[in-house]
Amino acid sequence: MRSFTGIDAEYEKPESPDLVIKTVDRSVDECVQQVVEMLMEHGILPRSFSESVLELFVPENQLSSVKEEAELLPKLQISTLDLQWLQILSEGWATPLTGFMREKQYLQVMHFGCLMEGGLFNQSIPIVLPVTTEDKERLKSNNGIALVHDGTIYAILRDPEFYEHRKEERCCRQFGICNLGHPYQKMIWDSGDWLVGGDLQVLKRICWNDGMDHYRLTPNELKAKFREIGADAIFVFQLRNPIHNGHALLMQDTQKQLVERGYRKPVLLLHPLGGWTKEDDVPLDVRMEQHKAVLEDGILDPNTTIVAIFPSPMMYAGPKEVQWHAKARMSTGAHFYIVGRDPAGMPHPDSPKQDLYDPTHGAKVLTMAPGLTQLEIIPFRVAAYDRKNQCMAFFNPKRKEDFDFISGTSMRGLARSGQDPPDGFMGPKAWQVLASYYKSLPTSSQ
Amino acid sequence: MRSFTGIDAEYEKPESPDLVIKTVDRSVDECVQQVVEMLMEHGILPRSFSESVLELFVPENQLSSVKEEAELLPKLQISTLDLQWLQILSEGWATPLTGFMREKQYLQVMHFGCLMEGGLFNQSIPIVLPVTTEDKERLKSNNGIALVHDGTIYAILRDPEFYEHRKEERCCRQFGICNLGHPYQKMIWDSGDWLVGGDLQVLKRICWNDGMDHYRLTPNELKAKFREIGADAIFVFQLRNPIHNGHALLMQDTQKQLVERGYRKPVLLLHPLGGWTKEDDVPLDVRMEQHKAVLEDGILDPNTTIVAIFPSPMMYAGPKEVQWHAKARMSTGAHFYIVGRDPAGMPHPDSPKQDLYDPTHGAKVLTMAPGLTQLEIIPFRVAAYDRKNQCMAFFNPKRKEDFDFISGTSMRGLARSGQDPPDGFMGPKAWQVLASYYKSLPTSSQ
Repeated sequence: MRSFTGIDAEYEKPESPDLVIKTVDRSVDECVQQVVEMLMEHGILPRSFSESVLELFVPENQLSSVKEEAELLPKLQISTLDLQWLQILSEGWATPLTGFMREKQYLQVMHFGCLMEGGLFNQSIPIVLPVTTEDKERLKSNNGIALVHDGTIYAILRDPEFYEHRKEERCCRQFGICNLGHPYQKMIWDSGDWLVGGDLQVLKRICWNDGMDHYRLTPNELKAKFREIGADAIFVFQLRNPIHNGHALLMQDTQKQLVERGYRKPVLLLHPLGGWTKEDDVPLDVRMEQHKAVLEDGILDPNTTIVAIFPSPMMYAGPKEVQWHAKARMSTGAHFYIVGRDPAGMPHPDSPKQDLYDPTHGAKVLTMAPGLTQLEIIPFRVAAYDRKNQCMAFFNPKRKEDFDFISGTSMRGLARSGQDPPDGFMGPKAWQVLASYYKSLPTSSQ
Repeated sequence: MRSFTGIDAEYEKPESPDLVIKTVDRSVDECVQQVVEMLMEHGILPRSFSESVLELFVPENQLSSVKEEAELLPKLQISTLDLQWLQILSEGWATPLTGFMREKQYLQVMHFGCLMEGGLFNQSIPIVLPVTTEDKERLKSNNGIALVHDGTIYAILRDPEFYEHRKEERCCRQFGICNLGHPYQKMIWDSGDWLVGGDLQVLKRICWNDGMDHYRLTPNELKAKFREIGADAIFVFQLRNPIHNGHALLMQDTQKQLVERGYRKPVLLLHPLGGWTKEDDVPLDVRMEQHKAVLEDGILDPNTTIVAIFPSPMMYAGPKEVQWHAKARMSTGAHFYIVGRDPAGMPHPDSPKQDLYDPTHGAKVLTMAPGLTQLEIIPFRVAAYDRKNQCMAFFNPKRKEDFDFISGTSMRGLARSGQDPPDGFMGPKAWQVLASYYKSLPTSSQ
């Protein structure tokens, strides 16, 4: 090749380049990302999946006619759990899904952990609507069904497709176990023998009127918030437990690392799961109060932290579910996801001293999952109470005798007996919230 | 853009084009395939996966030194089932696997049905080597292990990686059921609590000395055979049962369709599964004799049919396994795969009148499976005995009263009572083979 710029033809330095990439201390991926982002800004590359969140709400100007139509359609009563999934779908967390899964999508998810129409999208767990045989027979010849909860019509399900709810197979493939002692599976077995998929037209935003709706920001609202505060990197911490200073350490450390990598304003999305959880988990209202107290205690910086509720139900599906937790957050524009030990795990229903999942599988599967390449996975480092330095610190196996692991059970024990945890374990206000919750529990749930 | 050929510049018809594509009656895919094949022939595109089969045999010139080394290594006794999988790996059916799966590959297969290093390769079922805790402890610090069966060293496993054989989770994810009444799962539960992955150096071709080894052609040998007879399209029929004239009809019909689509010499790979099968399946030697008789009866054309044994064990894993059956055959260069109703299915262990899998799922999953796009899936059409025309014919629901479905049970009944099946159900020689097998069975297995 002749006249190749920089080889046998001169390289003329541009006078005002569209993009300057500083490569020092930055990975190839980061530099590539910069090029990609510029190309997207100029409309040369299409906006990636993460950029467009597919909301399923009926546009304002069609609302009254669609509502009128909905009143006349046959009705299907849906459960609280179904309504939580409807919220997830309506707000675009499961983009590009346009409704409850049809059989083809269900099979793609069960066998390949992905949706494969119009691209490859990570989707590791089924989002489905169970119906009874009776309801199926009543509704099967309709083109539209109104979904009703507690007297309110929330949505129309269009062009419904009924298919068998193969519960044993679903539990096996989704959870890697089929066991009625698993609390989410219990709900699956109690639900209808059919699934109905179809496109959704959602009539109103799903609210719970529990004083926490203002925390339930949609992906688009979160994006706006991040833009508003000038975030140039968003890292997510998913949790369903109280925050101790070991968690906080990890979040602080991630923030520090991102600043060192050149981000000007990395922002933490502290994103507790707010849908259904099993009975012995700490309830959402207590957790939200505790998280608020952690910020008031000054342990996390309110200027670089957004606290919001992730409205998904919990499934305790381990390596399958951690992908869902990560993928859903991609729709907020997040680029970094902190993954813990045994994410979305629980004890084995038949032998409670054993983890149901291999605690390393979640992070391993997350790192290799198709469709999650936009996200950088930040592995959780184990923190424990360092007696020598009287604070939570990353566990150092060389002086392991200095470290105490403080379990949920021992926290409950301390709270019940009116004792405080060791200094530096948790912010004082945050501890008070938790202690009074534990004290309020009947003795049987201790 | 100026001077665009065919727009504002003249289109000059080439005098001797490298490729002429006739588009009449051909799909876009077929035309594209023609372009792709030409580009590969000219070395412009790399040879696709299907073109290179990765055999794991030690090259002839290194054989004596590797054998010497193997003698000195610690030994691991492997079962007949393990040896069947070793054969599969050694001959390249599971290309690009270089040995028994390591944990990362195992997780990719379990969660995504694919291997994802250096490209995307369909691999729906794990190919793993179980070991006991005792063997693991004995072998874990070795860099090489000699795999021994029945006193013969077959291979060296290099750089072994031990990981937990999570049997409950494996059964659930692989089979969609966890049940000791499932005969392959029974073998999983009886096997070791650990898996060992690693790269294989295979010292010798695996033979079974049962008079059928000449049917056990490797993918490379099959390719050579297809070239030799001038096949320009290969279509595969996987089976583990005797062939009746309904099967034959389907194969004849496929051949006819391919000729109509412009192929000069479509060849049938009649490829019965030859590894482990459950006790009540017809044994391999009887099936091979029966298949031979079908050709002698003139029901299939010996000039356009290759009969060979697929050395894989059977797993009865339904939609997961049918992908394996298709993918493995891609390594022979096949482009067409006939898929039946309920492929790789069996009755539900707890309710034998029900299919374990939804009989439509196999074909559905096969059609959407990543990494199988080279294969065209030909759906099985149901054939039954047409009493009016006294032959097997595609079932016509408009005159369903004319059709008889002749089950395995009724075939056994006819054979035991010395009766012949209806004319045209099966070739006479082929029926004799089968009838004498059924007669030889003890009454309890009737």
